[in-house]
Amino acid sequence: MGDCTGRGLVSTLNLAPDHARGLSLAETAHGARISLTARLLRRLLSLLGSPPIGVQLWNGDPIQVGTGPTLATIFIKDRSALLKFLVDPEMQFGELYLDGRIALQGGDLVALLQQVFLRQPRAADPDSVSARLTALLRNTQRNTLSGSRRNIRTHYDLGNDFYRLWLDPTLAYTCAYFATPESTLAEAQLAKYDHVCRKLNLRAGDEVVELGCGWGSLAMHAASRYGARVRAFNISHEQIKHAREQALSLGLGDRVEFIEDDYRNLSSSCDAIVSVGMLEHVGRENFAGLGRLIARSLRTTGRGLIHTIGRSAPAPTNPWIERHIFPGAYIPSLREILQIFELTDMSVNDVENLRPHYARTLELWLSAFEAQRAAVTTMFDERFVRMWRLYLAGSQAAFQSGDLQLFQVLFSPARHGQLAWTRAHWYDTTRAPAWNTAKS
Amino acid sequence: MGDCTGRGLVSTLNLAPDHARGLSLAETAHGARISLTARLLRRLLSLLGSPPIGVQLWNGDPIQVGTGPTLATIFIKDRSALLKFLVDPEMQFGELYLDGRIALQGGDLVALLQQVFLRQPRAADPDSVSARLTALLRNTQRNTLSGSRRNIRTHYDLGNDFYRLWLDPTLAYTCAYFATPESTLAEAQLAKYDHVCRKLNLRAGDEVVELGCGWGSLAMHAASRYGARVRAFNISHEQIKHAREQALSLGLGDRVEFIEDDYRNLSSSCDAIVSVGMLEHVGRENFAGLGRLIARSLRTTGRGLIHTIGRSAPAPTNPWIERHIFPGAYIPSLREILQIFELTDMSVNDVENLRPHYARTLELWLSAFEAQRAAVTTMFDERFVRMWRLYLAGSQAAFQSGDLQLFQVLFSPARHGQLAWTRAHWYDTTRAPAWNTAKS
Repeated sequence: MGDCTGRGLVSTLNLAPDHARGLSLAETAHGARISLTARLLRRLLSLLGSPPIGVQLWNGDPIQVGTGPTLATIFIKDRSALLKFLVDPEMQFGELYLDGRIALQGGDLVALLQQVFLRQPRAADPDSVSARLTALLRNTQRNTLSGSRRNIRTHYDLGNDFYRLWLDPTLAYTCAYFATPESTLAEAQLAKYDHVCRKLNLRAGDEVVELGCGWGSLAMHAASRYGARVRAFNISHEQIKHAREQALSLGLGDRVEFIEDDYRNLSSSCDAIVSVGMLEHVGRENFAGLGRLIARSLRTTGRGLIHTIGRSAPAPTNPWIERHIFPGAYIPSLREILQIFELTDMSVNDVENLRPHYARTLELWLSAFEAQRAAVTTMFDERFVRMWRLYLAGSQAAFQSGDLQLFQVLFSPARHGQLAWTRAHWYDTTRAPAWNTAKS
Repeated sequence: MGDCTGRGLVSTLNLAPDHARGLSLAETAHGARISLTARLLRRLLSLLGSPPIGVQLWNGDPIQVGTGPTLATIFIKDRSALLKFLVDPEMQFGELYLDGRIALQGGDLVALLQQVFLRQPRAADPDSVSARLTALLRNTQRNTLSGSRRNIRTHYDLGNDFYRLWLDPTLAYTCAYFATPESTLAEAQLAKYDHVCRKLNLRAGDEVVELGCGWGSLAMHAASRYGARVRAFNISHEQIKHAREQALSLGLGDRVEFIEDDYRNLSSSCDAIVSVGMLEHVGRENFAGLGRLIARSLRTTGRGLIHTIGRSAPAPTNPWIERHIFPGAYIPSLREILQIFELTDMSVNDVENLRPHYARTLELWLSAFEAQRAAVTTMFDERFVRMWRLYLAGSQAAFQSGDLQLFQVLFSPARHGQLAWTRAHWYDTTRAPAWNTAKS
């Protein structure tokens, strides 16, 4: 490693080639080559925010970059991979990682990605020309009725056997709620269902609509523990199939109806409307329509909750995630989420940001996924394993770095006369809530 | 009252004049006159949403309007008052009420106003042409540095003796927090300070900046109970004077600094930034600037809280309120409030809507104010008493009807690594909070 160690590649690369022998023994004989590779690498590391990493090029020794403890050593297989990575890091890191042309040689993928995310500039003015152009160009896989069906099936119909390998027994595939940091994942998913049902103040006999119900565990929880009658919508065939079987086996067939249909086809009214982890797939162009649907469905004393991944400021969907993991997805800022409510006189009563909870959920999913790697490889292939690992690790890093947030937004018609005085009863179930009744 | 009683004026007014003898004995002799007055009154009541009220015209018997229990009987002194009221109800109800040309003859002003508010159409599309024109025309009393000083002094420099008459002993002039519905106002104001300090996770030695500090009681509470060092800004001379005296008498002179200056002149950095009841006076055109000020003042581990009146959708300030009570005020929607944070990578961690708490606070203020009516009349005059009564009653009605909301928005830099796992410790002070430390 020579005199590069501890001094940082970036500064080393500013030296003349004959001083840069730490870069690669093989390349010291070819000054021009060193210079070009070194400049490319310097540019790439600068784009990544110069995180403290090692780099192992195709033909040289590992290079220590930056000062401080190294998070990971990245292996780059050939010059063409380096060039591709450089041209479009956001897309190509993932593409090259899938193909094995970029790999980690030791170190922590989550920590590496978190440091890269933390070093990216953020918070562009959403009204700027470039932001508006980006908005125009994004969401090409639009969420029409048929488009949504195609987008959703790409991800959620990978097979229930696959998800059973690494999710908790309830097959909850959204952010859990860790009432204490020591909670297990299964406890935290149940706690999430209770947290949501308590926020909605569910009571026996309440008619509840769920938009996008996954494998149905929240709907069944609301029915079995709170006595609600639930109509739950989902366009994933695999998920609905599992949910119906579960409801029958639990004797909830008369209280929970699983409807294999688009949420936009809801026509009944209800006391509570809930959506956990669907808004990410709705698309911003459909937010006003979702607001109107909620307003016409919810009774005047009704309550609603939307649980969704969000951002602190608008940004386009990561292109690699949209191509490989969630086609048609758009992660809105909290302000964009509120567009749902503004046009229909809905009042936001509570917003909770559960960001640390999703980071922890993803950490546990990733660890369970890695433990099942052999089974997943048999079911799919090595490339799929790398794809899924990168998705889970990248998501965990995004929540840890604050790039992504998790919002639960509780709302009701603005003229709703009955509101709980405080939120204390959500945290102390031994105490009955005090209700405020406006004289209306 | 004849056959009008219980059948509703509106339907009666559709009858031919000779059937409308319930309207006014004096006018039955003049068919054309009845018809005109009746039509004017019908139009007015329709604009008000046809609430169940009685009307007493200048020259007739009381008229029962609508079915159900009567909320109040409105006396209209002359035809010119009726015409003015009709032309611009939002402005003229208040103007005529101040002048004694409209009065209540029995009944409840708050309940009447609440019913009127509940019956108004709301939630206009904020992007519509009319909404944009309204936005262009509003806020004529702009909040420049000198404009704000003039606007603020109009209201807050009415004299500390006046406010002492009807506020609680801490002179808190913002929404209280009723941990239980039985709390007294003084208890609820202290509970509000604790609620805010707990949300901000204030610790001994924390440097806190308060923007718009009123009579200084939150700043002194944060210093005396939480050991914070507070710099508190306010441009009301009367309030700052009182606050400085209080801080000295409580021995807090070395821990709390009251600065008679505009919040925009803040230049120091801090661990926490808090603003309770100032945003209403900032003006939407200054939200981005406030966001930048917060972002450059708050340290990377900092926390902030804005407590403000808000709406569920954008709407212009009530013109009577802007003329007589709060010049330059603008009550933003929650979505507009979030403009403060989006440009500077601040993350919203919690939003609480305390609407019922402000309705209750105002109810207690109004009742204390009425008890001090004689003293207030001596200090000012009868017209002032009516003005203040209408402002307090109208505000209470607006919170009861959901026309106004009260938001506490808690935020921190989006890359903040330390967040509490849950909000449970805000409600159980016997339990220490669990902290999440992102690996950043």
